[in-house]
Amino acid sequence: MTRQPALQGVKEAAARIASVVPPTPLLPFETDQGRIWLKCENLQPIGAFKLRGAYHRLAALSAEERTKGVVAFSSGNHAQGVAWAARRLDMHAAIVMPSDAPKAKLGATLALGAEVIAYDREAESREEIAAALAKEREATLVPSFDDPWIVEGQGTAALEAISQMEELAGGPPDSTVICCGGGGLSAGSALALPDVPITIVEPEGWDDMARSLAGGVIVPVGDNPPPTRCDALQTIRVAPITFDILHRHGARGVAVTEGEVAAAMRAAFSQTSLVVEPGGAVALAAVLAGKVQPSERTLVTLSGGNVDPAVFAEIICG
Amino acid sequence: MTRQPALQGVKEAAARIASVVPPTPLLPFETDQGRIWLKCENLQPIGAFKLRGAYHRLAALSAEERTKGVVAFSSGNHAQGVAWAARRLDMHAAIVMPSDAPKAKLGATLALGAEVIAYDREAESREEIAAALAKEREATLVPSFDDPWIVEGQGTAALEAISQMEELAGGPPDSTVICCGGGGLSAGSALALPDVPITIVEPEGWDDMARSLAGGVIVPVGDNPPPTRCDALQTIRVAPITFDILHRHGARGVAVTEGEVAAAMRAAFSQTSLVVEPGGAVALAAVLAGKVQPSERTLVTLSGGNVDPAVFAEIICG
Repeated sequence: MTRQPALQGVKEAAARIASVVPPTPLLPFETDQGRIWLKCENLQPIGAFKLRGAYHRLAALSAEERTKGVVAFSSGNHAQGVAWAARRLDMHAAIVMPSDAPKAKLGATLALGAEVIAYDREAESREEIAAALAKEREATLVPSFDDPWIVEGQGTAALEAISQMEELAGGPPDSTVICCGGGGLSAGSALALPDVPITIVEPEGWDDMARSLAGGVIVPVGDNPPPTRCDALQTIRVAPITFDILHRHGARGVAVTEGEVAAAMRAAFSQTSLVVEPGGAVALAAVLAGKVQPSERTLVTLSGGNVDPAVFAEIICG
Repeated sequence: MTRQPALQGVKEAAARIASVVPPTPLLPFETDQGRIWLKCENLQPIGAFKLRGAYHRLAALSAEERTKGVVAFSSGNHAQGVAWAARRLDMHAAIVMPSDAPKAKLGATLALGAEVIAYDREAESREEIAAALAKEREATLVPSFDDPWIVEGQGTAALEAISQMEELAGGPPDSTVICCGGGGLSAGSALALPDVPITIVEPEGWDDMARSLAGGVIVPVGDNPPPTRCDALQTIRVAPITFDILHRHGARGVAVTEGEVAAAMRAAFSQTSLVVEPGGAVALAAVLAGKVQPSERTLVTLSGGNVDPAVFAEIICG
């Protein structure tokens, strides 16, 4: 039977993850529209939330499955998450990564001991390469969002934020704004916060989840999507597992421009001394651009901070 | 009677400060010499620890003193600390700042509503300007480290870290490495952690506290100290109040090069998504350079993150 992602699974994942990494900080951040609360997943050991789902998935494998290792494909943050979890659990991880992935992400994945297989983003299918490799090795394929354990694991960020927000702001989150690529983090958050309004945020031209939610059916990114610095959010099509959870939850989506993303990165740099990568800054960008109005206790994810120095330098000096 | 800075005062300060800002995160950080724990004062609302001492000092003023306001001199972080505390307590703050202070620090101090008086670092004495202004206005002079309340307030960072370290690492800090300019943060930490070995860290050529501790008597920085990016640590002479506490405690000092500071800033950027200013990175630099050997639970301060974008960009791309 296929596992159904659920709140109970998020709680199981949270217990697993609490045993290996401390909660990420929840920091207050002042905006012209009022105070918001930043869930700093960029401060994870791998610089992004992805170790949450990866660890939950890998820890649930059987002893026999563990000996055969795992295969994943990712532009970088999921790659590091799987590599990190595999090292923790003493397993082999092979990661299929685009040859133009940020050097910071490639280097970090290698440093975590993973085997990296590069592919050409324009000419090859990472899904096919990964599937063939998994079959050949009898290894477990670990998708970056289309998987119940992954969704549950990513939801632990929002679950952690409940008690943090209660302690710091006197109550649980009453709205959330979440970065969205394939929807793992946002669908997991919907499981963790079943009664809290969710806005998911994507880069302009890559807002397929927003359009899917608005229309009630999955639509892919259009032909020739615009270039974006948000490499972590370049998902062509979301999956039923993430879409269904968000649709049932009543989530809505907004899109932000590259300029709005850069402004959010500058604000995080100068106001809170945080490095946020472009894809990790879209939720903050939506608030700062006035596209989402904060409520009394708004939870905003900073989902990652893995950005090449030259790109970061250009943006903060821009 | 002059107030004697003491552990009891640090505890009073901690209660005051807890009512206005949450504790700063304590984050694990892996080094070749083992795991250390970073006390992230760069994540304070003003990007540095200085609001701790300033708030403790200003909150202790009488109603009459409050109406007359405060005067401070600072290259930037203490300026913001005093401005932030004054705004919170509805007081006027006038800050004497060098005309070549980082623009980020000047701008932030103005944005906090303070009156800024610029002076020429080469030709004028900020102490004299500030003293004359305080006398004229009958305002209270708030020194950046030579003051018992300031020392006690800065000590709250280390006090906070005790329970954080117990929760995350299974016990209190068993050694500390602390950035040192005038010694407020390190002397306060010595009060907060009376039985824990302390290493203070300064930039090369500005290591007057280290030499003072080694010789048992206060000596100033030598003539023509070298240029340094650590603007926050350019103190010519420490004060008896900070020196005496550290000397009694048995603290020792080490010095780091500009290159070691830059390497630490790059490591914080790429390994933990944190922006640290040069002066705020010296303690981490000392560990990464192998000049301080970490123990089982080493507390390392990241004391500030206020750095101009162009300087940060140059360093992370260097």
